[in-house]
Amino acid sequence: MSSRYFEDWTEGEVVETRGATLTESQIVDFAMLYDPQPMHIDKTFAEAGQFEGLIASGFQTVAVSFRLFYDLGYMTHSNIIGVGLDEVRWTAPVRPGDTLRCRVEVVSLRESRSKPDRGTMVFKLTALNQHGTEVMNFRSTCMLKKRAAAGA
Amino acid sequence: MSSRYFEDWTEGEVVETRGATLTESQIVDFAMLYDPQPMHIDKTFAEAGQFEGLIASGFQTVAVSFRLFYDLGYMTHSNIIGVGLDEVRWTAPVRPGDTLRCRVEVVSLRESRSKPDRGTMVFKLTALNQHGTEVMNFRSTCMLKKRAAAGA
Repeated sequence: MSSRYFEDWTEGEVVETRGATLTESQIVDFAMLYDPQPMHIDKTFAEAGQFEGLIASGFQTVAVSFRLFYDLGYMTHSNIIGVGLDEVRWTAPVRPGDTLRCRVEVVSLRESRSKPDRGTMVFKLTALNQHGTEVMNFRSTCMLKKRAAAGA
Repeated sequence: MSSRYFEDWTEGEVVETRGATLTESQIVDFAMLYDPQPMHIDKTFAEAGQFEGLIASGFQTVAVSFRLFYDLGYMTHSNIIGVGLDEVRWTAPVRPGDTLRCRVEVVSLRESRSKPDRGTMVFKLTALNQHGTEVMNFRSTCMLKKRAAAGA
């Protein structure tokens, strides 16, 4: 659980997070605020619908997955800023009681040309449920400090 | 504020949302749960840092923006499912007290080949603050019902 700077990552490396269980309350609370589609907040509607039950907002799956990655502690002192998110795909429904964990693979590492104290890391995050089914994946680009810049 | 089905959209069309002000509490509460980086939850750290103050988690900006779009009411009965999110870019910080509103442009419309009751819409959402500065943009792909399929 210590910070990892730009130099501490290797392309192709994979890290895994611990799990987190998403409860019905969490799903409905998030959706009431950010994504109040009936499939996320109305159990009766959702049970009669295509997924046969409530499912989590995809935006919540993204956010929870990022939290699980962040909790590994690698980014605590090294992350300068998130640059972007690409190819977010929701591949299976996330239901109340599902436990998510994530696999994070380093896709590429590129030193900054203009700023010698940092570099860009692209990682692919894949979220899996308790059955090992992939529920979501995305690529994220972030800017990381180098050790020297951080005095680390 | 009535639902718009696949046939009701035109490529290149632009719709605009109302605004929403993001408070300091909302920014810290969201970040404590989903993105507890110091720039989002620690005012003292944030004031000494690159943005000279707290900024909202990018995941929250995405979620609030989707809510503003959803509140237009167009998707209420027509959205089958969100397929993906692409090219999310955070272009300027969002600070406590900022008011966001969104411009949503229809990028493409494609009928489903396998399912005649639906089609895919890609839209580009741009979030602007109260000064008209673009703070975030993304492309989203969703599957919409056709009118007949919805009995509408």
